Amino acid sequence: MTVNTSIYQEFSAELSDIEIITDIDRVTKLSLDYYHFSPILQSQLNDKKANLVVRPTTEADVIRVAKAGVNYKIPLTVRGAGTGNYGQCIPLEAGIILDLSKMNQIKWLKPGIACVEPGVKMAAFDKQAREIGWELRMAPSTYRTATIGGFIGGGSVGMGSMNYGQIKDRGNLHRVRLVTMEEQPQILELTGDDVQQVIHGYGTTGIITELEIPLAPAYPWQEIIVVFDDFMTAAQFGQALSDSAGIVKKLVSIHSAPIPSYFTALQPYLTQGKHCALLMVSEYDVAPLKDLVTEYGGTFTYSKTAAEAAKGTSLLEFTWNHTTLHARNIDPSFTYLQTFYFTLERVEKMYQHFGDEIAIHLEFLKAGGKAVPGGLQLFRFTTEERLQEIIEYHEANGAFIANPHVYTIEDGGDKQIDKDKVAFKQKIDPYGLLNPGKMRGFTL
Amino acid sequence: MTVNTSIYQEFSAELSDIEIITDIDRVTKLSLDYYHFSPILQSQLNDKKANLVVRPTTEADVIRVAKAGVNYKIPLTVRGAGTGNYGQCIPLEAGIILDLSKMNQIKWLKPGIACVEPGVKMAAFDKQAREIGWELRMAPSTYRTATIGGFIGGGSVGMGSMNYGQIKDRGNLHRVRLVTMEEQPQILELTGDDVQQVIHGYGTTGIITELEIPLAPAYPWQEIIVVFDDFMTAAQFGQALSDSAGIVKKLVSIHSAPIPSYFTALQPYLTQGKHCALLMVSEYDVAPLKDLVTEYGGTFTYSKTAAEAAKGTSLLEFTWNHTTLHARNIDPSFTYLQTFYFTLERVEKMYQHFGDEIAIHLEFLKAGGKAVPGGLQLFRFTTEERLQEIIEYHEANGAFIANPHVYTIEDGGDKQIDKDKVAFKQKIDPYGLLNPGKMRGFTL
Ligand SMILES: Cc1cc2nc3c(=O)[nH]c(=O)nc-3n(C[C@H](O)[C@H](O)[C@H](O)COP(=O)(O)OP(=O)(O)OC[C@H]3O[C@@H](n4cnc5c(N)ncnc54)[C@H](O)[C@@H]3O)c2cc1C
Ligand SMILES: Cc1cc2nc3c(=O)[nH]c(=O)nc-3n(C[C@H](O)[C@H](O)[C@H](O)COP(=O)(O)OP(=O)(O)OC[C@H]3O[C@@H](n4cnc5c(N)ncnc54)[C@H](O)[C@@H]3O)c2cc1C
Repeated sequence: MTVNTSIYQEFSAELSDIEIITDIDRVTKLSLDYYHFSPILQSQLNDKKANLVVRPTTEADVIRVAKAGVNYKIPLTVRGAGTGNYGQCIPLEAGIILDLSKMNQIKWLKPGIACVEPGVKMAAFDKQAREIGWELRMAPSTYRTATIGGFIGGGSVGMGSMNYGQIKDRGNLHRVRLVTMEEQPQILELTGDDVQQVIHGYGTTGIITELEIPLAPAYPWQEIIVVFDDFMTAAQFGQALSDSAGIVKKLVSIHSAPIPSYFTALQPYLTQGKHCALLMVSEYDVAPLKDLVTEYGGTFTYSKTAAEAAKGTSLLEFTWNHTTLHARNIDPSFTYLQTFYFTLERVEKMYQHFGDEIAIHLEFLKAGGKAVPGGLQLFRFTTEERLQEIIEYHEANGAFIANPHVYTIEDGGDKQIDKDKVAFKQKIDPYGLLNPGKMRGFTL
Repeated sequence: MTVNTSIYQEFSAELSDIEIITDIDRVTKLSLDYYHFSPILQSQLNDKKANLVVRPTTEADVIRVAKAGVNYKIPLTVRGAGTGNYGQCIPLEAGIILDLSKMNQIKWLKPGIACVEPGVKMAAFDKQAREIGWELRMAPSTYRTATIGGFIGGGSVGMGSMNYGQIKDRGNLHRVRLVTMEEQPQILELTGDDVQQVIHGYGTTGIITELEIPLAPAYPWQEIIVVFDDFMTAAQFGQALSDSAGIVKKLVSIHSAPIPSYFTALQPYLTQGKHCALLMVSEYDVAPLKDLVTEYGGTFTYSKTAAEAAKGTSLLEFTWNHTTLHARNIDPSFTYLQTFYFTLERVEKMYQHFGDEIAIHLEFLKAGGKAVPGGLQLFRFTTEERLQEIIEYHEANGAFIANPHVYTIEDGGDKQIDKDKVAFKQKIDPYGLLNPGKMRGFTL
């Protein structure tokens, strides 16, 4: 794990016209993501570091890197912005970090659809897309820094999932262009259901060099905070808003007390001991939203037009996994789970069962044709056993946990080995060099 | 019921600068709607006819008509295009037809929202709105001829309801301006939940002179026919498409055999004995739709881009209640029901129970946060008793029937008297002159 082994010297010499980073501090930084949200991953991953970072700007250079990597049998871990929250781009077996953040061209942008390189940052993309009236269908709360390639490779949901579901839902990714990790790297174009091979694949199933993505019509999104006395009323309001076909929205995020107290910058709009909803609703639909808020007895405390909101920090950056970030800024012993509750009855059951131990944070999203409550609940980490008990209690009661305390694709998902993905990987990465150790189902 | 009574002469003289129609043939025609789809309404309503028709072009003139109407205590029935299918604008007690089809200005049109006069035709509106990238959130299959005021006053759902639900869902109507039927007619502005007073009110709760309506982003809608061997597979496909968050659509209409054989103009694209889906899907999402069709074993037989579709008859005109129209063109003994099945299990149960007697036609729409199968099933009318049995069997099995064989608001809906609407009517129409006989809960 030093940059001085002869293999890496030869590799670097061959690719000397491409930006290569060997400076130990920079390599260390570029070997990190946000796995430290999990105390368990923290101890498992904190010594992992690449040997060097390569930062190509063209697909032709990506092919050269892949070819050299296979030639020297060096592990290769693709990186976008490195904002993954469960070690998606930590190089378990060292090797190269293939940093694609400089491959960031929008190839074309048309109404309804765009073609981009993987390193395009999501917020930067939207800025351009909005000029023709469109925007990304969904984006994570790391929207400002995360890349589109990284979201496809390592993310799953975010703002907009209220309308368009998860990335993996058919239709949310039209085409990807992939470089394989073979002696003679090939370029594959996947379309239709085949794109599933790379979605949430952690870069184990090929290097994405181009993506064709469907867009959503861009609305001016009003950012709104509503405060509630009672948590379950706030949750019911969240469900009702999500179910209101006549009110167009993008984000419905509900936080039980004391979570609002962790949102330092929002304190003027929040009340000690109360629960809150952070919302993005079409500016055109604020009037009917107010009627709904009245029905549920909530209090509007903050309402900014899209133009006003653009001047400051978006409420998005208090939702999804950013909620965890804010809690950890207050107390680093906070950790979290990622949960599909599916129904409010289950939310209520967990709320009552865990009491003060767990602070529930809900994000509504479309799944199976319905708006369902997901969530990233917060609690102080005590022991691994207690964490396991919490997970098991949720599962025993029918919730689905996407465990963020593990680093394999399978364990962070439904625990099943995806035979198609494994077979695909066998073909395009016969030496198992792409992000090794992340796909549990794959063996050499 | 002749135009020669002195009251009508005086009334006409007072308003002689407004277009008044007294020609018996024209008055007869303008006293009609499509109630004849129901053999029961046919016999109940076929002798109903107004005394004369007034066709103002300004709100000021509407006020004068209302004032004169109250003065002479003449019943007044508002009319848009007269395409209602259960006698919504049949003047049960004769009097005046207030034809607002010439009050057809778009007052303003902005991204996301528009303000129109009631007589604006829906398709004509969309033509203009699309120039700025927007369109109506929902429209009936009578889209080409029906007016916006008439849709609000007498309609309920249509294409787009897949996304935005029913007209009555909070947020789908922002504001209405109303002229009351008092000695001194007033102008009321209803906003928020108060707009419910006029939605599906059959013009009994005031004369709408202006509407502010939220819009939907305009997509180019690809028109598609898919053919299936098995009806329940077609129905499941309809549900799956409706539930596919990643595929943007506007219309999902499923027809069991032999309904497709009634679509004369579409015969080249349909197969004897098979079942079909008539769809409007975003042009950008046709590729993922194809994967879904493959999954359900359907066959694409027709696919037109929005531009191509605009040259001919839209598939819309074979869906919703237009299906009934085509069936009746083949055999006028066909009649229909309007049904919320809510679940496919119930669809299947009815399909098996009624066999050949009833041909099921489903329209998917958003209700209570879910895409649910509604439908306008077809059958040959035999007796009133058998019709009643059919309705009761559906209701006993949990379906909801919006009975199109009755002419009161209540009986065509949930049969309950809406106390708010009645109280509102008492205030704004103290003499009960607006479309008398249509609101069962109202008594003088
Ligand atoms: C505070 C916080 C909030 C978050 N909120 C959300 C959220 O709301 N929703 C959500 O889904 N996620 C969320 N995440 C996780 C993460 O930020 C997002 O998924 C983000 O989109 C990842 O993008 P990235 O560019 O940082 O990807 P990276 O972390 O760089 O990469 C992610 C994975 O994709 C692979 N990858 C990257 N580029 C390519 C490529 N070109 N070809 C093949 N594989 C590639 C990498 O190898 C890695 O396994 C959050 C994380 C944090 C820390
Ligand atoms: C073949 C066919 C298909 C149809 N498909 C659908 C469908 O898909 N969805 C659907 O919802 N309906 C449908 N309908 C019913 C009807 O066509 C629609 O509801 C249509 O929108 C009515 O508009 P209109 O201008 O014809 O209204 P009209 O029939 O003229 O009026 C309807 C009602 O509204 C009242 N009204 C009209 N203007 C005003 C006003 N300014 N102020 C107050 N009250 C007013 C009238 O008094 C009347 O009671 C269909 C009917 C037919 C015959």
